[in-house]
Amino acid sequence: MNWTRRQFNRVAALGAGVGLVSGARAQLSTRKLGYCVVGLGRISMQHFMPATRMSQYARVTAIVSGHRDKAERMAAEYEVPSKNIYSYDNYNGIAGNPEIDAVYIALPNSMHAEYSIRAAQAGKHVLCEKPMATSVDEAQAMDDACRRANRKLMIAYRCHFEPAHLRAFQLIRDGKLGRIEAIDSAFGFNIAAGEWRLKKAMAGGGPLMDVGIYCLNACRHLTGEEPVEIKGYSSVVDRDGRFREVEENVSWSMRFPSGAVASCSTTYGANMTSYFRVLGSKGELIVEPAFAYDGQHLKAKIVGEAPIDEPSTLRDPGCFVRQADHFAESVFSNREPGPNGAEGLKDMKLMAAIYRG
Amino acid sequence: MNWTRRQFNRVAALGAGVGLVSGARAQLSTRKLGYCVVGLGRISMQHFMPATRMSQYARVTAIVSGHRDKAERMAAEYEVPSKNIYSYDNYNGIAGNPEIDAVYIALPNSMHAEYSIRAAQAGKHVLCEKPMATSVDEAQAMDDACRRANRKLMIAYRCHFEPAHLRAFQLIRDGKLGRIEAIDSAFGFNIAAGEWRLKKAMAGGGPLMDVGIYCLNACRHLTGEEPVEIKGYSSVVDRDGRFREVEENVSWSMRFPSGAVASCSTTYGANMTSYFRVLGSKGELIVEPAFAYDGQHLKAKIVGEAPIDEPSTLRDPGCFVRQADHFAESVFSNREPGPNGAEGLKDMKLMAAIYRG
Repeated sequence: MNWTRRQFNRVAALGAGVGLVSGARAQLSTRKLGYCVVGLGRISMQHFMPATRMSQYARVTAIVSGHRDKAERMAAEYEVPSKNIYSYDNYNGIAGNPEIDAVYIALPNSMHAEYSIRAAQAGKHVLCEKPMATSVDEAQAMDDACRRANRKLMIAYRCHFEPAHLRAFQLIRDGKLGRIEAIDSAFGFNIAAGEWRLKKAMAGGGPLMDVGIYCLNACRHLTGEEPVEIKGYSSVVDRDGRFREVEENVSWSMRFPSGAVASCSTTYGANMTSYFRVLGSKGELIVEPAFAYDGQHLKAKIVGEAPIDEPSTLRDPGCFVRQADHFAESVFSNREPGPNGAEGLKDMKLMAAIYRG
Repeated sequence: MNWTRRQFNRVAALGAGVGLVSGARAQLSTRKLGYCVVGLGRISMQHFMPATRMSQYARVTAIVSGHRDKAERMAAEYEVPSKNIYSYDNYNGIAGNPEIDAVYIALPNSMHAEYSIRAAQAGKHVLCEKPMATSVDEAQAMDDACRRANRKLMIAYRCHFEPAHLRAFQLIRDGKLGRIEAIDSAFGFNIAAGEWRLKKAMAGGGPLMDVGIYCLNACRHLTGEEPVEIKGYSSVVDRDGRFREVEENVSWSMRFPSGAVASCSTTYGANMTSYFRVLGSKGELIVEPAFAYDGQHLKAKIVGEAPIDEPSTLRDPGCFVRQADHFAESVFSNREPGPNGAEGLKDMKLMAAIYRG
C-alpha cells in the first residue's frame, strides 16, 4: 500500500461529490459543459444522455452520428439544434462551434484514438469511453494530442464515481482492512454473435479489453499501486464461430510492490455477477455486483467491528451523472480529471502485457 | 471438459455414499478398518478420531505420538489398548500388529513421506493428510512405495466427500452449466506466529501448500482436466517476522486444455471465507464457504431454471466420516481410492510449477 497524498485527495474529493470551495461552486452552478455526443449506441442513448438531464454541470449540445434519423430523434429529445448534428464526414466542423466544450466518445474502440485526437485538435476537451484505445501506441497518441492542445482528457471509468467503490477505497485508506494481501475480481457476460466487440479490428481484443479492464483497474485502484509482475492466459472454449478473432476467456495474476497479489478472470462465454474481493490483514471486503450499471453491494468483515452490509442506493445513470459532472468540474477548474489519459494508458500497457502472455 | 467414464463413476459412487452392491455391503458391515492414528494434532483429535465414532467401516485401533500422556488419554477415550500406543521410536512395531490395517498420517508435511513409506513397508495401507509431501520427489517415493508394497494410498482431500462439492460436480457433469469458461477460487487465513506451518523445512511452503491446494485441487476436479499452463506469484506483505521462511500470499492463473481458465489466490495474512466460483456457458455456480470443515453453501443461477440455493447440512466431522469410510471400502474391495497417490502427486507437481514462477 503506497497511497499518495494526491490519490487520497482525489478519492476524498470524489467521495464528497464535488470538492470545490463554495465560491467556485457558486460560479460553476451558472455554467454547464456542452458535450458533443460522438456515437449513438446503447451507452450514449441509455446512460450518458439521460444522465445529463440529472447533472449539475453537463448538457448535451451536439451529436455526431452516421444515422441522421436517429440523430434527429435524439436531438429533438435533448433540445439539440439541428445545426449541431454532425456526421462522421463533417466531424471537423465541431471546431467552429462554441456550444461544444467537450466530446463524449462512445464509438467502437478502434475509433477512440482518431476521434479523440481530432476533437483535441478542434479545441475540444475529451471524455472517452474505456478501453482508451485498441493499442498502447494509439492511447499514447491520444494523451499526447490532448496535452499538446492543452485539452483535458478523461477515460470514462464510471466505477471511480460509484459509492460502493468509493466506500471500499475509504475503508482501505482508513486502514480498516489492515494491509492488503490479495484481491480477486471477475467480470464477464455471454456475448451475442454478431457484436462489433467480436471483431478484432474494431475491439482490439475480447473480454479483457471490454470488461476485464474493470477488474484490472479496480485492483490498481484498491491497492493504490501498479503491478510489477503480470501474467495471463487467453483461451477459447466455445467453437460456435463467435471467437474467430478475439479470445473468449482471460485469467491473469499480478503482484504489486507491497506484496499484495491479485487474480482476475473475464469471459465472453458466461453470464456472471461481477465482483471484487479484498483480503486484508484485519478484514475482508467484497463488492458484488461490482461493475454493473447499478446495484453494487458492499459487505465487509473487519476484526473487532460489526459486519458491514451496504447496498448502494445510487441508481443508473447515477455514475454517469457524477462522471459527467466530474469532467465538467475538471475543465472549469483547470484540474486534471481523476481517471485521466495517463490512467487509461496504464491499463492499456498492462492489458498488452497480459495478451503477450 | 473431458470427464472420463472413470471419473463419472467415481463421483457417482461418492455421491451415493458407498457404491457397493448389496452383497458386498452386507459383508463389509461386519468389518471395520483398524486405523493407527499417526500424530495427535488438532486434525486427528478434533476431526478424524471423532469421525471414526460415527463411521460404518472405520475405527481407531492404535495411536502413534511423541506425547505418551496425550496418547494414553486419547487411547482411553477410543478404547485403544495400551499395547497399541507407539512412539516415533518404535513405529516400525506396527508391522507385527494385526489390529492395524491402515495408518492415518496427520504429521507436519515434512514427515508425510517417511511415515507413509515406513507404513507401507510395514504392510499397512496409508491415508495421508494433504499436502501429500513437501516435494514432488517425496510424493513420488510415497506412491512408489505403496505400489511396491501393494498397499492402498489415499490423500485426505476431504472436500471430495463434501455434499456441496459433489453437487457442484453433478451439476457440471449433467451439463447444467454448459461448458466451463472460468473458475475463481480462494482460501486463506491469518496465521498465528510460531506455527510449524511457518517453518519451511516442516511445511515445504506457505499457504499454497496448506490451503491454496484446496483451490488448485477443486479447479482440477471441477473441470475434470489437468492445466496445461500455470503461472503464479508469491509475496510477503507483513514484515512482522512470521514470513521469514515461507510466502504469505500466492496468486496464480491456469489454462486447461478445453480452454477453461482459472485464477486463484491464497494467503496466510488474512482471514477469509473460502470459495470457488464456476462460470459456464449456461450458468454460474458458487460454493462459499467452500473449504471449511462444514457450512458449505452452494448457489447457482442456470439459464431457464429456478435459482439453486442449497446450504450443506453435513456437519463436521461428516466429511471425515465419509473419507474414512471411503478408504476402508477401497481397501476391502481392493479398489483404487478416489483421491489416490497419483492425484496428490499431480497437485504437488503443479504447486512446484507455481513456486518456480
